[in-house]
Amino acid sequence: MRFHHTGIATDDADALADLFGDLLDAPLVHEEELDDLRVVFLELEGSYFELLEPLDEDGTVARYLDRNGPGIHHVALSTADVAAALDTARNCGVELIDEEPRPGAWGHEVAFLHPASTGGVLVEFVGEH
Amino acid sequence: MRFHHTGIATDDADALADLFGDLLDAPLVHEEELDDLRVVFLELEGSYFELLEPLDEDGTVARYLDRNGPGIHHVALSTADVAAALDTARNCGVELIDEEPRPGAWGHEVAFLHPASTGGVLVEFVGEH
Repeated sequence: MRFHHTGIATDDADALADLFGDLLDAPLVHEEELDDLRVVFLELEGSYFELLEPLDEDGTVARYLDRNGPGIHHVALSTADVAAALDTARNCGVELIDEEPRPGAWGHEVAFLHPASTGGVLVEFVGEH
Repeated sequence: MRFHHTGIATDDADALADLFGDLLDAPLVHEEELDDLRVVFLELEGSYFELLEPLDEDGTVARYLDRNGPGIHHVALSTADVAAALDTARNCGVELIDEEPRPGAWGHEVAFLHPASTGGVLVEFVGEH
């Protein structure tokens, strides 16, 4: 299990990508539209920032922005076996958002844990590929 | 500039350290009291979680918990030269919380940027040592 990325909810992924490019020397290395989100990855020496900009007003990130404003949304950890990581989470009594791995951004398998059982931290598991 | 740690505000660092130890195989590698905080580092293959538990009710993390509840508080990036990173931030028009590097947890020099000018993301620079 390794750190993979910090997920950031934003109203303006382009502006934040420009700033983090200048501020942190973190270039844009991937972007896509996934469901109701524009997703932008910035690379920082082997890990990433994942910028999440809602494309409509009804998605979970749009609601997150309404409630909390922009900022850090989740932390993502990479693992060779997302299903096994979910089994470990179940054995720890952690509530799951995703009972099984599902397709996520950049072609990765992903699964989220419920922050209510992880100290308020939204944790994402990301499959290696 | 590399990812160093995710800072997490918590009311119960021991419980969260136990959970993340079991869930993520992230052992406790350092703990200390720093000003009005108990600070606990968990290691995850070369990066860390930094758990921040207030020791009194008046500090910034205590106020953060009152406002937001427990969860991800900041992202920390390591750099060989914190002062140079602050100069870059100034040149990008970023507002600084710390105008100069100051002593932080685990013997590192640290400095924080103001989240109002970094997309709501509280960014900490950490000196390598």
